[in-house]
Amino acid sequence: MSNDITARRLRAGIVGGGRGAFIGSVHRIAAELDGQATVVAGAMSSDPAVARESAAAWFLERSYDSFEAMAREEASRPDGIDFVIVATPNHLHFPVVNAFLDAGIHVICDKPLAHTLEDAEQLARKVASGKTLFALTHTYTGYPAVREARELVRTGALGEVRKVLVEYQQDWLMEPLERAGNKQAEWRTDPARAGLSCCVGDIGTHAENLLEYITGQSIKSLCADLTSFVPGRRLDDDASILLRLEGGAKGTLVCSQIACGEENNLWIRVYGTKAGLEWHQQEPNTLILKRAGEPWRLLRTGAGYMSDAAKAVTRTPGGHPEGYLEAFANLYRAFIADIRRVNAGLPPQGGYADVNDGLRGMKFIIRAVESSAQGARWIEL
Amino acid sequence: MSNDITARRLRAGIVGGGRGAFIGSVHRIAAELDGQATVVAGAMSSDPAVARESAAAWFLERSYDSFEAMAREEASRPDGIDFVIVATPNHLHFPVVNAFLDAGIHVICDKPLAHTLEDAEQLARKVASGKTLFALTHTYTGYPAVREARELVRTGALGEVRKVLVEYQQDWLMEPLERAGNKQAEWRTDPARAGLSCCVGDIGTHAENLLEYITGQSIKSLCADLTSFVPGRRLDDDASILLRLEGGAKGTLVCSQIACGEENNLWIRVYGTKAGLEWHQQEPNTLILKRAGEPWRLLRTGAGYMSDAAKAVTRTPGGHPEGYLEAFANLYRAFIADIRRVNAGLPPQGGYADVNDGLRGMKFIIRAVESSAQGARWIEL
Amino acid sequence: MSNDITARRLRAGIVGGGRGAFIGSVHRIAAELDGQATVVAGAMSSDPAVARESAAAWFLERSYDSFEAMAREEASRPDGIDFVIVATPNHLHFPVVNAFLDAGIHVICDKPLAHTLEDAEQLARKVASGKTLFALTHTYTGYPAVREARELVRTGALGEVRKVLVEYQQDWLMEPLERAGNKQAEWRTDPARAGLSCCVGDIGTHAENLLEYITGQSIKSLCADLTSFVPGRRLDDDASILLRLEGGAKGTLVCSQIACGEENNLWIRVYGTKAGLEWHQQEPNTLILKRAGEPWRLLRTGAGYMSDAAKAVTRTPGGHPEGYLEAFANLYRAFIADIRRVNAGLPPQGGYADVNDGLRGMKFIIRAVESSAQGARWIEL
Amino acid sequence: MSNDITARRLRAGIVGGGRGAFIGSVHRIAAELDGQATVVAGAMSSDPAVARESAAAWFLERSYDSFEAMAREEASRPDGIDFVIVATPNHLHFPVVNAFLDAGIHVICDKPLAHTLEDAEQLARKVASGKTLFALTHTYTGYPAVREARELVRTGALGEVRKVLVEYQQDWLMEPLERAGNKQAEWRTDPARAGLSCCVGDIGTHAENLLEYITGQSIKSLCADLTSFVPGRRLDDDASILLRLEGGAKGTLVCSQIACGEENNLWIRVYGTKAGLEWHQQEPNTLILKRAGEPWRLLRTGAGYMSDAAKAVTRTPGGHPEGYLEAFANLYRAFIADIRRVNAGLPPQGGYADVNDGLRGMKFIIRAVESSAQGARWIEL
Repeated sequence: MSNDITARRLRAGIVGGGRGAFIGSVHRIAAELDGQATVVAGAMSSDPAVARESAAAWFLERSYDSFEAMAREEASRPDGIDFVIVATPNHLHFPVVNAFLDAGIHVICDKPLAHTLEDAEQLARKVASGKTLFALTHTYTGYPAVREARELVRTGALGEVRKVLVEYQQDWLMEPLERAGNKQAEWRTDPARAGLSCCVGDIGTHAENLLEYITGQSIKSLCADLTSFVPGRRLDDDASILLRLEGGAKGTLVCSQIACGEENNLWIRVYGTKAGLEWHQQEPNTLILKRAGEPWRLLRTGAGYMSDAAKAVTRTPGGHPEGYLEAFANLYRAFIADIRRVNAGLPPQGGYADVNDGLRGMKFIIRAVESSAQGARWIEL
Repeated sequence: MSNDITARRLRAGIVGGGRGAFIGSVHRIAAELDGQATVVAGAMSSDPAVARESAAAWFLERSYDSFEAMAREEASRPDGIDFVIVATPNHLHFPVVNAFLDAGIHVICDKPLAHTLEDAEQLARKVASGKTLFALTHTYTGYPAVREARELVRTGALGEVRKVLVEYQQDWLMEPLERAGNKQAEWRTDPARAGLSCCVGDIGTHAENLLEYITGQSIKSLCADLTSFVPGRRLDDDASILLRLEGGAKGTLVCSQIACGEENNLWIRVYGTKAGLEWHQQEPNTLILKRAGEPWRLLRTGAGYMSDAAKAVTRTPGGHPEGYLEAFANLYRAFIADIRRVNAGLPPQGGYADVNDGLRGMKFIIRAVESSAQGARWIEL
Repeated sequence: MSNDITARRLRAGIVGGGRGAFIGSVHRIAAELDGQATVVAGAMSSDPAVARESAAAWFLERSYDSFEAMAREEASRPDGIDFVIVATPNHLHFPVVNAFLDAGIHVICDKPLAHTLEDAEQLARKVASGKTLFALTHTYTGYPAVREARELVRTGALGEVRKVLVEYQQDWLMEPLERAGNKQAEWRTDPARAGLSCCVGDIGTHAENLLEYITGQSIKSLCADLTSFVPGRRLDDDASILLRLEGGAKGTLVCSQIACGEENNLWIRVYGTKAGLEWHQQEPNTLILKRAGEPWRLLRTGAGYMSDAAKAVTRTPGGHPEGYLEAFANLYRAFIADIRRVNAGLPPQGGYADVNDGLRGMKFIIRAVESSAQGARWIEL
Repeated sequence: MSNDITARRLRAGIVGGGRGAFIGSVHRIAAELDGQATVVAGAMSSDPAVARESAAAWFLERSYDSFEAMAREEASRPDGIDFVIVATPNHLHFPVVNAFLDAGIHVICDKPLAHTLEDAEQLARKVASGKTLFALTHTYTGYPAVREARELVRTGALGEVRKVLVEYQQDWLMEPLERAGNKQAEWRTDPARAGLSCCVGDIGTHAENLLEYITGQSIKSLCADLTSFVPGRRLDDDASILLRLEGGAKGTLVCSQIACGEENNLWIRVYGTKAGLEWHQQEPNTLILKRAGEPWRLLRTGAGYMSDAAKAVTRTPGGHPEGYLEAFANLYRAFIADIRRVNAGLPPQGGYADVNDGLRGMKFIIRAVESSAQGARWIEL
């Protein structure tokens, strides 16, 4: 296979995501979906046997026992990987990202960016000072309808934004799964591996990112009431947060992992002086536009009237539903396009969360935890 | 017509609700819907000409120029009214209710109970010490699906309640209608006639009542961020409120009159340790029950599996939608049944908001305004 | 009470609708809802004891043991009823309507018009040649959103109508209730009392009426496949019908009483050259408008942008749901307005199904049964 | 790359699907989604320049100017393709499939199977007599919720099926696009390339396949009314069809390409003696189960309570929506698994439409056209 990047699919590696981790397959599918990349190498588990098995199941060409070895060797091979996917638990994001950035290999990483603000800031400085690309997989901004929503706000269709309501409701932690052998629950509720927060860190930060992405406004201050409803749990599994945005809008961010009966219910409403909008991740191909004094309009992914911003991330005609994997793949599509672009000497164009978004997400988590610890009082972000 | 209350429809009077006030017709329809009462007398406007015209349009037998005269004369007539409907702007609730209580005439009154906490407490004492019945029209608790929701919580189907989310979104005050001649907007945004609050007082209190009605729990403390988004408006038109309930649950109450595109979007979600539930006032005949680990169930008004509590307030078979007027009429049905009951020497049974609910609503409004005025800090209710 | 019709509520009588018949209360509520009429007399059951009990429960002033006596006596009283409500099983429609028409009392009657085409035609001739008003309660045309739908077609918003799909799905006859003592099921599945058809006669005719009402087009021919799915049942409980309309449109009418899980699921879609529309009786306050190449619009009862035709039959602001009883009451409102109009020497204006609509409904039932009996072949209507 | 099929992704080729044909990318994405195959060769257009450009855009290793050359050469290469994807217009299905079957290369092909019944039968015989696998891409049976639906019927949850209603509504041919240069519209409305039917052949056959797949019953007879609503169009763009199934159920199949405002609205309802079910392709992750006398249940893709049949084709947890591409990929997953199975000497297991389904689809199209041509009379299938 040619090594001319313009004439071939990119070569990708993955750290983490081995057997049992749902997110591993999601990354592989998303990375490869547009036929622009193939995962060829991996350090898929800290357990070498699991790593090898996982790599074999994916027909990977090269399996490593450690991410350090992988970064080092891939960087030196003529047919080494063009980028690496970081799909480990949170506490490993920093060392893994660091290692690949140092090796000059482009990085795409799960959120949150790091374990501490200091680590996150260090990564941000490193990315800013280098030429290696970095992307954070805030999946939900990859949906065409979310792109449309952002475009509607950006072009003034909503007028001035007044009220923002964003929620992320799940129930998968409503029982103490971390004491029943569930690996995903174990690390997410363990301060050593998850960081300061479970619920806000895992899903609240997606809600925060979505809100800021669509409105184009930053959260200025917040008042957060975090709770651990499940007895014995060491981190929050629920949060209710009042928000004030820099543009003057107000609102709430509510996230929960104990909302009985909810699957992955991320949704958002934005109300402006001219129109409102509403979007539900679980039925992602419809965007509701509520113009003042007019009937609600149901904007649909794939329709001819959608903006170029939405069309650019749409693969199928209207009525052929796209979902989570396609949204995820849209981040990869933009990231891979940027790799091709910088390879051709052109500046990157983005289209995915970057290290600064990751830094904001970290601050959001930290401030929410602080606010709550102080009795739910207002804190500047 | 016989004056034996068991052999005839009751006779009702109305104060307020004249020409142009949508709520007047709503009261008349609701009061008469079950064929248990007829509106026969009224003091329908402070403008005598409007009062007379309105009464004639309704074929009322007696029209009064003042509520004082009406209370006095109806109390002394052998065929006087059995109860009075109070449908005036907020600031008149106190004197009108007072007058009819003093005249020994049963009273059913729009919320909020009064203009100040002192007035409300005075009315509460008067009702408590007398034999005259008093009902507050918290319409939304009249829906069969709301009765079912309350029953589900009461009988333990939800387990222990953890999270409560209630919203009431409208947009009718998103423009400064009070400066464009809209009477309804004028008095609702005028502190002299509406009281301390517009949005929280007018609709937030419905949300508070609904939440407490369904959960059977009282709000213990709140942290409220009220806003007047429309320039020049003297009272709030939006609020985001964090809640803590006495039973340990937490949640949010969000209400707005500037939520562009929303009509009368009151809805609630309650999440417990065993199940969650969700109800929308705008599609009121469906109650969503979300048992842990099971498919969502769509419970429907009129279905055979509904509880007796719901069936008791249902008039049509499943699939024949009931709406706002029927919900309102359910309050009247219970109130009228209580009038018949006390007339027969039996104790009243309720089934409608009473003066204590009204008092709680007043406290909620006052505390929300206080909390917000102090920078949105926590206040005990 | 004055006998001047302009200064009082009208006086109504009712035949049928006694204890146990849900439709009786529906008629009373609908007739009285707008404060324009009061039911004062009745022959509510062929069983005199039931008739008297039912009348007493409603506080009626006069109860009759037979409809013949009622027609005769009410016609001769100075304070006799202004109109009669006919809410009997189908086979009694003809004699009852006949009796009251002969007595010169305005009639509002449940569908279908009669038991046989001959009877229906005789009634039609009688109504045409006299001055007594006649209305048929095709309830579903009373919904504001249905009025809007008709208006959209009438004003050309849909362009030329091409395809029409109407359905009425229920499940209440999916078991042989007629052999388990259910009175409603007994007469509806009994050819002697229901006529030629159960399902098509009871609900298919509502679908047919709705389709013709909205499109303004008549059914030209049909091909009907009727079935009795429940063993031993003597009349159809299900039908699938191909339709061709006079304007060139085609489509289907599907109705069933064995569609497991369905309550009262009447709904319609109309597709034209410029737009389509969709309406569901069970969520009646939303009308979906589908303009070519544009997002679907959700038109809502009570909104400012609705047509005058819809506003004229709307009682509450947007978001305060109206339902089945209000739709029913809209027929009464128009019928009563016509009684007042003819009393004032003005011509009636309609706004409800008339005797000719009833005649068309009869033909539809008869032709559907014929078509099916001949192996489901095409028949002109 | 190893040629041991157990240690590598399969190699796929594609005929058709070049630039501008949406279905080409869909096939590539679906074929590759699970990391079990890579498209490496193609004869992507009858125009050699387009073929080469399309192949380069996909980084294919080998591009051919004709499918005949491709079949011949790939069959003789040691690293030749393991299977071929046929994504051409309908009239080419027969020769292309034939060529690859003759070359001993497994075939997965778009529906309909062929242009004429004779061709279809010839292919069926060839597949039956050989060892080469053949799959037809009836995409919609790949959805997890459809698998669940079939499982519910199969295991008796619905009881005996009585009524079936299936629809496929689109509007993309509501204008004469075939005269405006739209290639997709041109061949689909051209009898020489599309065959006997446009609408029934293109989408009606999907509806037929879905119905038979879920119910496990075959259509016994039909009565079809086909129409060309767009002036000048040579094939049908709309059909309304009455159905009788072999098990005694009845119902309708309605499909249209002129249903203004509809995108790709395929949906189905099945009503049995114990329960009904409902599924919508445009919101494919929800299956509505309607048990007699119980609340509707919303079964959700990815939930723990789903059957193994559904779980086997689910990639993401509940609430992470899967869509059209994943459904399509499920057919490829089963097809590829069968290739690996026969390669290991095991019998194929299916899990995709086969040549007999294709034959039934052809018969359905032909009989529907015949029925309509005879004035919409009943015809046995």
